[in-house]
Amino acid sequence: MAKVTIIGAGMMGSAMSVPASYNHNQIRIVGTPLDEVIISELSKTGYHITLKRALPEGIEYYQFKDIDRVLNDSDCVICGVSSFGVDWFLENVLPKLDENIPVLSITKGLKTDESGNMISFPEYYSRKLPDKHFSFNCVGGPCTSYELVDKHNTEVAFCGKNMKDLEFFKSILQTPYYHISLTTDVIGLETAVALKNAYALGVSLAIGMAEKDHGEESVPDYNAQAGLFYQAVKEMSKLIAMNRGESDKIAFGAGDLYVTVFGGRTRKIGTLLGKGIKYGQAKEMLKGITLESIAITRLVTESLKRTNKNPEDFPLLFHIQSLIDEQQKDIPWDSFTY
Amino acid sequence: MAKVTIIGAGMMGSAMSVPASYNHNQIRIVGTPLDEVIISELSKTGYHITLKRALPEGIEYYQFKDIDRVLNDSDCVICGVSSFGVDWFLENVLPKLDENIPVLSITKGLKTDESGNMISFPEYYSRKLPDKHFSFNCVGGPCTSYELVDKHNTEVAFCGKNMKDLEFFKSILQTPYYHISLTTDVIGLETAVALKNAYALGVSLAIGMAEKDHGEESVPDYNAQAGLFYQAVKEMSKLIAMNRGESDKIAFGAGDLYVTVFGGRTRKIGTLLGKGIKYGQAKEMLKGITLESIAITRLVTESLKRTNKNPEDFPLLFHIQSLIDEQQKDIPWDSFTY
Repeated sequence: MAKVTIIGAGMMGSAMSVPASYNHNQIRIVGTPLDEVIISELSKTGYHITLKRALPEGIEYYQFKDIDRVLNDSDCVICGVSSFGVDWFLENVLPKLDENIPVLSITKGLKTDESGNMISFPEYYSRKLPDKHFSFNCVGGPCTSYELVDKHNTEVAFCGKNMKDLEFFKSILQTPYYHISLTTDVIGLETAVALKNAYALGVSLAIGMAEKDHGEESVPDYNAQAGLFYQAVKEMSKLIAMNRGESDKIAFGAGDLYVTVFGGRTRKIGTLLGKGIKYGQAKEMLKGITLESIAITRLVTESLKRTNKNPEDFPLLFHIQSLIDEQQKDIPWDSFTY
Repeated sequence: MAKVTIIGAGMMGSAMSVPASYNHNQIRIVGTPLDEVIISELSKTGYHITLKRALPEGIEYYQFKDIDRVLNDSDCVICGVSSFGVDWFLENVLPKLDENIPVLSITKGLKTDESGNMISFPEYYSRKLPDKHFSFNCVGGPCTSYELVDKHNTEVAFCGKNMKDLEFFKSILQTPYYHISLTTDVIGLETAVALKNAYALGVSLAIGMAEKDHGEESVPDYNAQAGLFYQAVKEMSKLIAMNRGESDKIAFGAGDLYVTVFGGRTRKIGTLLGKGIKYGQAKEMLKGITLESIAITRLVTESLKRTNKNPEDFPLLFHIQSLIDEQQKDIPWDSFTY
């Protein structure tokens, strides 16, 4: 039994309490300042208002102001913030945290270094805190939060530099439905799963295009979706190789891409853009929805430009960027061929 | 303008007449003995009874008995038989065909050689006809026949040994909606796209399991589907490498897997098996539907056993085989981790 402290009461962070609870760990969830209402309701009733599900019994809930009561009395910390919370976590949590307590982060995304090269969040944290020696580990792979709460079978990977820490996290989180691979190929896994948000938007364009051309009740346009899926896997593989990840991580990227196309937020924006709605208007229509797909597209296209990579190797990603920039163009289908 | 003769009036073979017609080629469709009714209706009305769509005007239709009227008066031949028709094509068409007429085959599948190693259909044809020097080329990639007829955007690859022949086929078939890559990596592409039938059955198991566990109207179980998709891409990549294909062909395999999960026949049998229905009964329920997924699963698992490969590297494929053999087992989720 381990003392597990989850920071961030968003959907995925909170969902991690379900496999953690299965293994009889002592679980605390500490909300970020954005999670006050969620924590308040959880404290009273155990019901998570955005997951729309009750969390397991026996969890302790804390508002962020009370983090010091539990943070360093933990055997491990799960960082449950989204990619938009990475700097907040860096400034508000890590300085307080004992460096001997290993961290597992559910955040998917990438950062760039001063030269514009893509780096993983663990790498980013380490560079920002050169005097501390944290063990940063991450979760990747296809997992929708509410399905994890419902104990559906889920295949993920944990990555980090230290296999012993990875095995520790696996020992406290592995369940009959949550299946965990372990890898030290951090940049490979993180590149694969960060990019899926961008490319799921790309695949969803075909859904919107079919609705525009043939009506919402039409037969979905699977050839076009699959053509974009093919190109997405091709570009993701290139990006994994470019970042010096191992090529086999594309399997997690492809699985994560699959689940994200069906998953909600990213599909919505992609479908709207595919219908020909301009980005500004689409963003208005989805008010309140955080768009990691947009952020990662911008970050990666800018990195590729700054590091003088050939945009023609990534025509789908740059097409998505052109839609975000409201430079409406047709999908460059022929540039996907060789 | 080229004289294009399509042999086989099934759905995909016939669909190839649509891009061919766009480029003003002279098109003939010669039915196999199984296609008599289809050809008869096409001759009268131009309507394809299984595609449920009219084919382009100006096509000439022939019953198989009349093949000699056009076969060798062709600039190229498109072989439109399914994998179950490969030996028929070998015995009934190729002996009559001038070896200078290049062949493009839409057939997806693999054969084994005398040692049990997997070989592509072009390789199989060449070995069976050692005295002839045909140019055999194949189509791979995600393409549903009726969507091609409807001129939806479609990304495919043509593979063959001779780039000049590939470019010829591309010149007569490329259209604004049919996008063609060219590659000489025949075994890589053919392995990727042959295997998608087996693995689409695998991914579909999760659809049936969710319906069994939660009712047909339930939220689909995307984590489990995506977990199986991940494992499928992993095993397909290993098989491509084992057959000495190039690793980038997994992009076509993943795209083809995606379209096949949504495509019909294979999804149906996978869903039934996922519900726990035994193979014999499921086969009865789908009477008349040809099951290439079953054939390719059997061929590849037998090849792996005969060539002493480790079945533990392909736990999903062997699980599918165990369902076909009616040895009911749970999905071996933990064997997908590493």
